Amino acid sequence: MDATQTNARTLRLAEDDNILVAAGKIEPGAEIAQGLTLRERIPFGHKIAARAIATGEPIVKFGQIIGFASKPIAPGDWVHEHNVEMHDFARDYRFAEAARPVNVLPVEEQETFQGFRRANGRAGTRNYVGILTSVNCSASVARFMAEAAMRSGMLDAFGNVDGVVSFTHGTGCGMAASGEGFELLKRTQWGYAANPNLGGVLLVGLGCEVFQIGRMKQLYGIEESETFRTMTIQDSGGTKKTIEQGLERIREMLVAANKVERETIPASELTLALQCGGSDGYSGITANPALGVAADILVRNGGTAILSETPEIYGAEHLLTRRAKNRDVGEKLIERIKWWEEYTARNGGEMNNNPSPGNKAGGLTTILEKSLGAAAKGGSTTLNAVYEYAEPVTEKGFVFMDTPGYDPVSVTGQVAGGANVVCFTTGRGSAYGCKPAPSIKLATNTPMYERMREDMDINCGDILDGVSVQEKGEEIFREILAVASGKRSKSEDLGYGDSEFVPWQIGAVM
Amino acid sequence: MDATQTNARTLRLAEDDNILVAAGKIEPGAEIAQGLTLRERIPFGHKIAARAIATGEPIVKFGQIIGFASKPIAPGDWVHEHNVEMHDFARDYRFAEAARPVNVLPVEEQETFQGFRRANGRAGTRNYVGILTSVNCSASVARFMAEAAMRSGMLDAFGNVDGVVSFTHGTGCGMAASGEGFELLKRTQWGYAANPNLGGVLLVGLGCEVFQIGRMKQLYGIEESETFRTMTIQDSGGTKKTIEQGLERIREMLVAANKVERETIPASELTLALQCGGSDGYSGITANPALGVAADILVRNGGTAILSETPEIYGAEHLLTRRAKNRDVGEKLIERIKWWEEYTARNGGEMNNNPSPGNKAGGLTTILEKSLGAAAKGGSTTLNAVYEYAEPVTEKGFVFMDTPGYDPVSVTGQVAGGANVVCFTTGRGSAYGCKPAPSIKLATNTPMYERMREDMDINCGDILDGVSVQEKGEEIFREILAVASGKRSKSEDLGYGDSEFVPWQIGAVM
Ligand SMILES: [Ca+2]
Ligand SMILES: [Ca+2]
Ligand SMILES: [Ca+2]
Ligand SMILES: [Ca+2]
Ligand SMILES: [Ca+2]
Repeated sequence: MDATQTNARTLRLAEDDNILVAAGKIEPGAEIAQGLTLRERIPFGHKIAARAIATGEPIVKFGQIIGFASKPIAPGDWVHEHNVEMHDFARDYRFAEAARPVNVLPVEEQETFQGFRRANGRAGTRNYVGILTSVNCSASVARFMAEAAMRSGMLDAFGNVDGVVSFTHGTGCGMAASGEGFELLKRTQWGYAANPNLGGVLLVGLGCEVFQIGRMKQLYGIEESETFRTMTIQDSGGTKKTIEQGLERIREMLVAANKVERETIPASELTLALQCGGSDGYSGITANPALGVAADILVRNGGTAILSETPEIYGAEHLLTRRAKNRDVGEKLIERIKWWEEYTARNGGEMNNNPSPGNKAGGLTTILEKSLGAAAKGGSTTLNAVYEYAEPVTEKGFVFMDTPGYDPVSVTGQVAGGANVVCFTTGRGSAYGCKPAPSIKLATNTPMYERMREDMDINCGDILDGVSVQEKGEEIFREILAVASGKRSKSEDLGYGDSEFVPWQIGAVM
Repeated sequence: MDATQTNARTLRLAEDDNILVAAGKIEPGAEIAQGLTLRERIPFGHKIAARAIATGEPIVKFGQIIGFASKPIAPGDWVHEHNVEMHDFARDYRFAEAARPVNVLPVEEQETFQGFRRANGRAGTRNYVGILTSVNCSASVARFMAEAAMRSGMLDAFGNVDGVVSFTHGTGCGMAASGEGFELLKRTQWGYAANPNLGGVLLVGLGCEVFQIGRMKQLYGIEESETFRTMTIQDSGGTKKTIEQGLERIREMLVAANKVERETIPASELTLALQCGGSDGYSGITANPALGVAADILVRNGGTAILSETPEIYGAEHLLTRRAKNRDVGEKLIERIKWWEEYTARNGGEMNNNPSPGNKAGGLTTILEKSLGAAAKGGSTTLNAVYEYAEPVTEKGFVFMDTPGYDPVSVTGQVAGGANVVCFTTGRGSAYGCKPAPSIKLATNTPMYERMREDMDINCGDILDGVSVQEKGEEIFREILAVASGKRSKSEDLGYGDSEFVPWQIGAVM
């Protein structure tokens, strides 16, 4: 990161940039660099022309093209939607050209955390009992059970258990019983059931829904056990009897789940979900690159970091294909990109419309500008694998999972893939929290951090005050180890995570 | 209904039928009618051939074609998926041919209920304070507020208020900011905000989502008032401050909402949502036609009954176009049917795949068989209007609203349209409940009613034991008046309605 402060209020991010970024609101007439006077009032995080830019000329930020001038731009002009447009321009994938072997530390030198070792050898950072639901029709019953368990004092006797949590959602019926949408939901449900942060799982259905629990068990050869039970409201005789019987099963699971204690586990068993939400003009220059450093450290320690949010790296996929382990991995990414073009077209949309109103208010003009900033979370190591939504992540190192950018849907896929901790960067200020994977929230700027201190775990805004991206990345990594070992993140303290299970819904609702 | 019992265990539904319906599980060898012996074991609610049916010959139930034999069927054979198929066959719309003027009772002869008269003249059957959410990112905060309000004892002083309820969902961002999907969500949110069962509404957002509260207010010219407030987590300074400020606003709303008392209101101000879920072979012969009678009585009393679930009347739309007030109303229905064909095709599906695994297990073989049974809920009066999903229902009498069949999504559209009471028929046994509109659940058969007594309000299974459809319809209508006047339905007693707000999601998740 070549972030040179031009003066107190603007940043030049790379030598070749023809724009500066405002480090605060700046009034017209302000001299923002030698010989450069601001012509209009521009908000915090927005771009200012550093020199004259002719119509059609590229806008350069991070040393890379983020768009093209749609009209002549004078030095000191505000640069945003009104004078910037996107063209399709040639992408050069250069598969695997920049892939380098990762020097993973020997296991005895790896950092460690205090985690829960599961019977199947995997490691958890939390120990919840989860109530999954096959359909919205069992959502209330699942909530009633979780609330009853939490309220009853039942948990007092089980000090190693973090809680009972219900995962409710809006789908599971009124959908095709096969095909893409059904496969996504199936993977998501079994992915959650298998997440190492759950010490026991009760799956509750209504009985007549499209997402048939019995068929699933048959298909996957799944057996009931003391830590995995299924039931339906129709078979159990209605709401009250289901709750009563469910609470009995939960009590049995609590006994089983409580037997496991935290022990020392190498950091290589951490699977980190990388996420951003409510991005702003600083996301790509503070929190995201700092999180990239933390991801690189985790990968060197043998762990796994999952970059996702395909629409948010759209237009910057060549940055990842170059880092792909081999051509196959790179091509799998491109295949997903093409799937997205088809998916959005089929739905009457297009792929260059991603920055939300909030993103734009925060200073991000084009999808390419946002993508370059978003991809920074992934650090710099070789891309070892590309997964579809909610697929089990089995490769170590830096990997990509295809998900929407929309936070709850994206993290749901990552957790289904096996993520046991989440790092979430935010500029505008997201209040997101997750169960069963704790979520660490990283503020991109100090004013938002100050304003939403009770929701933010780490301030990355001080990068603008001289803290290096490297130092900040090391701080994030230490926080990941601490939270993985049981330190509660801000969103856990606030009680988040019971309303954020949102499986990706594809296809007609019928 | 010409339901003649052939013996204790089967029903012939119409003179011309070539099938009988099992009124209980029947074993092979049983003589089910004169000279007719059952050839295989068949379950409750399923169909038995009353005579030989050749390949390609129609299967006739309700006196109407429900499918065609895919192989030769012998007398006493089980008739289901294995020997029945659907063809496309000509539909004859005969627009408005069967429309008849409805003799609405003079207002002084109309039945009445004890309801809440709103300042705008509309009438509610409940008096909730609702917390709407623009996006999943504010779901937890909305829940925390509703829980805090309910737990705090805050409500004790407000005896006329039914409670504080949060309406959370999985969408609101990661979506196109215009077009079909966005319009649906917009209508749904403002429809809930305007529902007469809400005495106050707080709309909470994150701040940076696609569904921008500020823009909406501008667009609709909506002003804040003591019973309508908006806020965002980002503007309020995070989770805790939002909850604190939100609870202050809720307290003000409770004071305002508590000022209204139940008063006598004509039944013409009831808007009834008709719904079925988890249908079985009896839905179309017991609960649905009985509900149709109740709908007819309500319409005669000047009220409104909304039939919905377009995919479930698919194939039987000619029954409705003939009853349409005029050609325009009939054509609007056909336009929606065509939209559905396009919607499902675009999503790689088709319109004849609707019976769910549960429906099939219950004895429904084809979409046409199910549609004919589902449409019976709509009674027999003239179809006065056709609405799109979540549009405000302004016409009185029998109307249709285009929704999916999936229960929570369908009722959400009906309540957004202004429904203030719901009647929900179920054969397999749904545990559905709704807020802010109370939901009355009607069991189609006695065994399920007995099994799920705590969830069912009325047993329509006794129609098989000799109670007439007309009597049952009158009983349902009386129950509607009682529940509208404050009697709590079973699902209200159980606490349902906080997890069943599911806006119809159309389009790509990005
Ligand atoms: Ca984002
Ligand atoms: Ca995101
Ligand atoms: Ca929900
Ligand atoms: Ca149904
Ligand atoms: Ca339904």
